[in-house]
Amino acid sequence: MEAPGEEDVAALRRRLAAGEQGHVLRFWPELGVAERRALAAELSAMDVAEINCFFRRARGGGGGTAAAGPDARLEPVPRDVLGSASRDRRLLPVWESRGLAEIAAGRVGVLLLAGGQGTRLGVPYPKGMCDVGLPSRKSLFHLQAQRLRRLQQLAEERHGTACSIPWYIMTSGRTMESTKEFFQKHRYFGLKKENIIFFQQGMLPALGFDGKILLEEKGKVAMAPDGNGGLYRALGVHGIVDDMERRGVQSVHVYCVDNILVKVADPRFIGFCLEKGADCGAKVVEKTNPTEPVGVVCRVDGVYQVVEYSEISLDTAQKRGPDGRLLFNAGNIANHYFTTSFLKDVVNAYEPQLQHHVAEKKIPHVDIETGQLIQPEKPNGIKMEKFVFDIFQFSKKFVVYEVLREDEFSPLKNADSQNGKDNPTTARHALMSLHHRWVLNAGGHFVDENGTRLPAIPRITNGRSDAAPADVNDNLKDAGDVPIQCEISPLISYGGEGLEELVKEREFRAPLVIDEDGTHELVHNGM
Amino acid sequence: MEAPGEEDVAALRRRLAAGEQGHVLRFWPELGVAERRALAAELSAMDVAEINCFFRRARGGGGGTAAAGPDARLEPVPRDVLGSASRDRRLLPVWESRGLAEIAAGRVGVLLLAGGQGTRLGVPYPKGMCDVGLPSRKSLFHLQAQRLRRLQQLAEERHGTACSIPWYIMTSGRTMESTKEFFQKHRYFGLKKENIIFFQQGMLPALGFDGKILLEEKGKVAMAPDGNGGLYRALGVHGIVDDMERRGVQSVHVYCVDNILVKVADPRFIGFCLEKGADCGAKVVEKTNPTEPVGVVCRVDGVYQVVEYSEISLDTAQKRGPDGRLLFNAGNIANHYFTTSFLKDVVNAYEPQLQHHVAEKKIPHVDIETGQLIQPEKPNGIKMEKFVFDIFQFSKKFVVYEVLREDEFSPLKNADSQNGKDNPTTARHALMSLHHRWVLNAGGHFVDENGTRLPAIPRITNGRSDAAPADVNDNLKDAGDVPIQCEISPLISYGGEGLEELVKEREFRAPLVIDEDGTHELVHNGM
Repeated sequence: MEAPGEEDVAALRRRLAAGEQGHVLRFWPELGVAERRALAAELSAMDVAEINCFFRRARGGGGGTAAAGPDARLEPVPRDVLGSASRDRRLLPVWESRGLAEIAAGRVGVLLLAGGQGTRLGVPYPKGMCDVGLPSRKSLFHLQAQRLRRLQQLAEERHGTACSIPWYIMTSGRTMESTKEFFQKHRYFGLKKENIIFFQQGMLPALGFDGKILLEEKGKVAMAPDGNGGLYRALGVHGIVDDMERRGVQSVHVYCVDNILVKVADPRFIGFCLEKGADCGAKVVEKTNPTEPVGVVCRVDGVYQVVEYSEISLDTAQKRGPDGRLLFNAGNIANHYFTTSFLKDVVNAYEPQLQHHVAEKKIPHVDIETGQLIQPEKPNGIKMEKFVFDIFQFSKKFVVYEVLREDEFSPLKNADSQNGKDNPTTARHALMSLHHRWVLNAGGHFVDENGTRLPAIPRITNGRSDAAPADVNDNLKDAGDVPIQCEISPLISYGGEGLEELVKEREFRAPLVIDEDGTHELVHNGM
Repeated sequence: MEAPGEEDVAALRRRLAAGEQGHVLRFWPELGVAERRALAAELSAMDVAEINCFFRRARGGGGGTAAAGPDARLEPVPRDVLGSASRDRRLLPVWESRGLAEIAAGRVGVLLLAGGQGTRLGVPYPKGMCDVGLPSRKSLFHLQAQRLRRLQQLAEERHGTACSIPWYIMTSGRTMESTKEFFQKHRYFGLKKENIIFFQQGMLPALGFDGKILLEEKGKVAMAPDGNGGLYRALGVHGIVDDMERRGVQSVHVYCVDNILVKVADPRFIGFCLEKGADCGAKVVEKTNPTEPVGVVCRVDGVYQVVEYSEISLDTAQKRGPDGRLLFNAGNIANHYFTTSFLKDVVNAYEPQLQHHVAEKKIPHVDIETGQLIQPEKPNGIKMEKFVFDIFQFSKKFVVYEVLREDEFSPLKNADSQNGKDNPTTARHALMSLHHRWVLNAGGHFVDENGTRLPAIPRITNGRSDAAPADVNDNLKDAGDVPIQCEISPLISYGGEGLEELVKEREFRAPLVIDEDGTHELVHNGM
């Protein structure tokens, strides 16, 4: 490729100047050919007028700042829009059947938010490629793909019709290539390639407080993804809703890549939303500690929204109902249900109305006068983002579905570290603990090396010698749970079903792996 | 001291032989003078007939084994014996007043179970001496002592009478000396020496499965403390109940040393028990995860007891009530209330009826034939213990008081380690998070280095650079909470009271320390 032609550059310069962003070409004369080409391409794809408009609206609206929160007007989710895995147990089979019927009819799709890089996790690839150290060494993508395969199989068995669940995967510019390669390398984990649709979310430049675009290098704009709410714009840009309609998808389960326990296309959740006639729904877990850093689903002036933890006062966070529970306890886990028609309205009508949230950040940038790289000590600019839950307010019929944290939520956020949370070890333990419970609930047992049955709630084996003197205060034992090593392939069981014939009245020694070949590797049958 | 006389040894030998424990003198001829003296002293203090009796009863009763658990007969705690800090909030002032009046009248004592060494914690001294790295570097003993001082002051202010709360401290043989020295060195943390009563719990020998006493060395019996339920025997041996009666103590709060948040002599708990006319009560926290390793208070055949987590089936642990909560959710935190008269009955009548729990252990021991030290790979013997909650069954009026975990329970069990729980870092964070909430609830604010008010639920600062690209899936943020550094001396506030005049409408930068000198070290008043 050649360097950009002079006419093109002149046009670009005019357009930027008209938007009062001409400064981004300040170092043009110093750039080499490749840098010029890259910068020109980046700037040509940018709608400067729109960005300026975003900035004005975002600064005007104060979206995302904690100062004047909606605190006083918050109302909790009323019981009649709430379905609960713990409180409505007798309805679970009803919802599950409804969901499976919908899947069997080919009317359910899933949409994965996978634009995140593993920055905080300390890995140089997309989070979904992470292997948290399970016996199978499966990645998050792998687990999710196999859950979809199992669900398709369950729906087919139940209804006798072949079906598929299209999987829409939103990546960012940074993760697209490696994600696609990973799927290709793993032959789409046994799914049909044509049912996996990758698309890319947008990026926006970081701006100074004055609205001026910041440069990361002399020839490179400081760009950031436009938040997971960039989904809606990307749905339009890439014709994803049209694709859903073409395939006959009417219900979409949207979720984040990093939750190792995620029940993709959860038929109970989908069935509940269908039974309620909802156009929009949020899956939540109970928040039990007032200062847990999790957003809560609630109503403000009758309209549903997620109030982020940084926007809530302690007074409100501490409020309790007559049953002693936190009043605002619907913890958002980024697991949502949308009808395709609602998504269509969002893309066409609602999304453009949304203003961006402003995050004030310390943004390293090139000083436009001196050309020096500045590493600011205080916030010096903003990033503009939309959130996936910003569209709840447009729902005509909104519902909330509460599930058990230990069954469905264990996000992978951080690298393993001292006293860490939400890291590979906690994710691995959460999955193995769930699968251990599945085996017990299906009538299986675990025994130790001497053939003695192990308690259902595992004892602690964190390196403490049994020979050490008994601790006089030891009745509480140790809360550091090391679960029994147990992993069940999603191809064998999606949510604990179908295990009786494999484990009932049998005794196992850990590590136990029940996998898709029907072979029980690492299993020592103790009977 | 001289070596034991031949006659004494002969008498000892006869007594041991009568109890079929003569083997413990097998290596006598090989021992030096000092070893002989120590062994003779150890054995002379031992009631062999009684130990044999304990063994027969413990093995017969099967106490403590999981096999035939009481699982099917379990009933949850009924609402009418339950007081709850979250569900009965309007009654809290009533209970608090009642408790403070009782303290003011000198009728309340506290009893600390402090026999544990810091083995698992990795420190060579008693747990109570641990400093978890608070800004003040106070030890657990120090915090507890200052809470008692503040409570005495509050009771005095309220009722105009000087009062004291006697503090009974049970140590083990291993911790007595260092504990006493620590208190002496710190001048009893400002408490009166005569109101701190140290006493020592008993020890029992470890036994082989055949009931034979095991030797740790050729001249040393393998001894272990007799469990925290050894309390009741020790109360009798050392005349502690008599001392309580002499002092006019009618209510006793018993607790474990390792909970950094413990509300010693909690007036609400004591007041609640008094209002209910209880002779015995347990403070609990809600168990929310079925497999959390915590014992639960429940009824078996109408009698209250603690079922340990290793004794409960998953089926039972997972049971939920109509409100979706776990049915067996009264998590025992080793915080108990007893009337002195109940303790007296326990010591005189009930305790001797209790059989020991048997813990099968790998016990290093000297082979009695070869004289070699054996490090067993499988359990080879037992330790016999009683538990402090074993006496609940004898209560005529038993009550349960539920409190919030984040306010009252954060035990120190383990050393800091990867993914650790219940360690110095979690303990320190729990205390600082509580004190941070106290300041906010009293109308204070925290600001960052730029003077901007910080959200009530702290943002995450675990080393992630703000300059890193925003994570598209970042709406849940990070659950790894690093609390704002804030420590309030117990001499200033026992439970959050009395802080308004110090913090209301003021702005603080962390670390904030509010201490007993009234000076606010490390405080930068941002107003």
